[in-house]
Amino acid sequence: MAPIITPTRRTRRTHFTRRVEAAGVKGFTVYNHMLLPSVFESPEADYWHLCEHVQVWDVAAERQVELKGPDAAKLAQLMTPRDLSNAQPLQGKYAPICDARGRILNDPVVIKLSDERWWMSLADSDIKLWADGLAQGYGLDVEVFEPDVSPLGVQGPKSTELMARVFGAEVRDIRFFWGKMLSFEGQEMYVARSGWSKQGGFEIYVNNGELAEPLWDALFTAGEDLNVRAGCPNGIERMEAGLLSYGSDMDETNNVFECGLDSYLNLDAPIESLSLPALKAMANTQTHKLRGLLFPEAFDVPAPYYLMDDDQRTEVRSSCWSPRYKKFMLYAMLPLSYTAANETLTVQGVTGTITDIPFPKEKLLEP
Amino acid sequence: MAPIITPTRRTRRTHFTRRVEAAGVKGFTVYNHMLLPSVFESPEADYWHLCEHVQVWDVAAERQVELKGPDAAKLAQLMTPRDLSNAQPLQGKYAPICDARGRILNDPVVIKLSDERWWMSLADSDIKLWADGLAQGYGLDVEVFEPDVSPLGVQGPKSTELMARVFGAEVRDIRFFWGKMLSFEGQEMYVARSGWSKQGGFEIYVNNGELAEPLWDALFTAGEDLNVRAGCPNGIERMEAGLLSYGSDMDETNNVFECGLDSYLNLDAPIESLSLPALKAMANTQTHKLRGLLFPEAFDVPAPYYLMDDDQRTEVRSSCWSPRYKKFMLYAMLPLSYTAANETLTVQGVTGTITDIPFPKEKLLEP
Repeated sequence: MAPIITPTRRTRRTHFTRRVEAAGVKGFTVYNHMLLPSVFESPEADYWHLCEHVQVWDVAAERQVELKGPDAAKLAQLMTPRDLSNAQPLQGKYAPICDARGRILNDPVVIKLSDERWWMSLADSDIKLWADGLAQGYGLDVEVFEPDVSPLGVQGPKSTELMARVFGAEVRDIRFFWGKMLSFEGQEMYVARSGWSKQGGFEIYVNNGELAEPLWDALFTAGEDLNVRAGCPNGIERMEAGLLSYGSDMDETNNVFECGLDSYLNLDAPIESLSLPALKAMANTQTHKLRGLLFPEAFDVPAPYYLMDDDQRTEVRSSCWSPRYKKFMLYAMLPLSYTAANETLTVQGVTGTITDIPFPKEKLLEP
Repeated sequence: MAPIITPTRRTRRTHFTRRVEAAGVKGFTVYNHMLLPSVFESPEADYWHLCEHVQVWDVAAERQVELKGPDAAKLAQLMTPRDLSNAQPLQGKYAPICDARGRILNDPVVIKLSDERWWMSLADSDIKLWADGLAQGYGLDVEVFEPDVSPLGVQGPKSTELMARVFGAEVRDIRFFWGKMLSFEGQEMYVARSGWSKQGGFEIYVNNGELAEPLWDALFTAGEDLNVRAGCPNGIERMEAGLLSYGSDMDETNNVFECGLDSYLNLDAPIESLSLPALKAMANTQTHKLRGLLFPEAFDVPAPYYLMDDDQRTEVRSSCWSPRYKKFMLYAMLPLSYTAANETLTVQGVTGTITDIPFPKEKLLEP
């Protein structure tokens, strides 16, 4: 029997949890001290539906940390090595949060609401505590808090059509990682073209808990003929798409170079960021890199599982069977010597191909 | 069907998880990004066994944050308003962690290993990030990290006998919240008389993952005639005993006065603690206090449930049926006007008694 998750107030319910339960959720995980649905029908059935129709996702567990005040921009920039100086109001930027030793603490989307008001839409760690400690220690004039803001994802190829029906045609003009303030039942809320799938979609930052269920219901009513249903981040789809999960694929023992996130950085940017000196110093000293591996058949990877016995860094980070490509997908750190093209690796007698992340389409399609 | 918990690397397994699974664990929760067992046979069966015999608990999820270096003691004291100046080596102190606004961020046992080396044995929040932010901002000479240390609980009335069989008679002299460095298979590890039950017990801070399963097995072999079995923190026992759960009974919206933790503090202590100025200012300004409530029969408390409709602060924090006392136990914040003796409250037609926490024995025993 699969272990159940025991309810407590500590593993917080969201403003959408009642609807999620009514929709027949079968599994949860805990993310930022909050319930995050993980499966409805089955991972495979959820996957195919996501790729063909439109789903509504309770991703309220992507909690925001809000930085508010005269030093908000300064604090945000201290926390990430990505240059935020050119961020525009209502623009989001994927920005790894890195400490003074260059280690990754989180990988949020950082949203500039205004010069003095920023959100970090978090992966799973209490970045609010780090921000508060820094603000306190540096004596910054900034408030740090978690607002009552609950992202609701609308994901899938029919998401634009559904969103247009509920929020108006304006949603069609929103560019990727940008957003607009749009109205639902008279309440303005931030709506961005973003989300943890590559099927297209939006995230609605619901800022009034009383509107959470009415909004959920409005999406289901408007989307009936679009075959809308409840969904959640899907492990198959996100691995096929090359999306990383903080805590699984990378954690605070890793740096941006190992994880391929240095492409978001300009190490010579004239910004004041805590991690930049360390990152410059370590730029050419890496020994490992996060790689994709594709195998023709699945095998058992009990956790922890090291691809190379003598190297704990080669622990498998994520694994999943792709029903579309009939491939067993893995993410793992490998020594740099394994980054050459067409390298192979044999595990449990099964020989696989080492690739970049995201997996190149031609590798997925190989027979 | 109860929702299952979906496995990921992000919700970390512990060095004991394989043994926990072999022992038939039925439920988990996630605590400090790690699996914490929550039920084996049933909450009631687990409870009666804990009160009569001895259990081995995988509480590795009580992660340590280690402060190491010349400024370790200074940083520890900044983080808690409890006076740590008289802490002795190998002594633990229950010490709420409070920010500059006086809000509770965690309630660990703080263990002084030496002048320059401290552990905080954490409840569920990433205090490491707060400590790192403070150390960085204040320019302190201290390392902050999570060591590979995994507490294993041995709890229940027969725990002293079992521990003496495995670690020697020395365990009998360990006083409550003190510890000794004791040896298992040649490895010295910190062993404290502590744990999240009131049935008596110890926590072994296992500092070598390779010894985790051998130690588990040694406890089971030595305790066979003591009826040892796998267990976990038990909601019934801990509520009967008056133990609080951070995240459920109190969180960062609360302060020590509301939660009755001010008894651990001396507001006039000559210490440098971030929260002390705020706490002094708010000492006599409270409106609510965490109270126990005992009802003769159980009723449904769907989350969130407010005992007083017009006051969200009166949300039920924890609830549980006591099979021993045949009482429905609740914890909730109530306005100070409800702190008088013998006050009652009627909920859903059931009239209960408001009490202190822990519940006074005579109230539990009332017919």
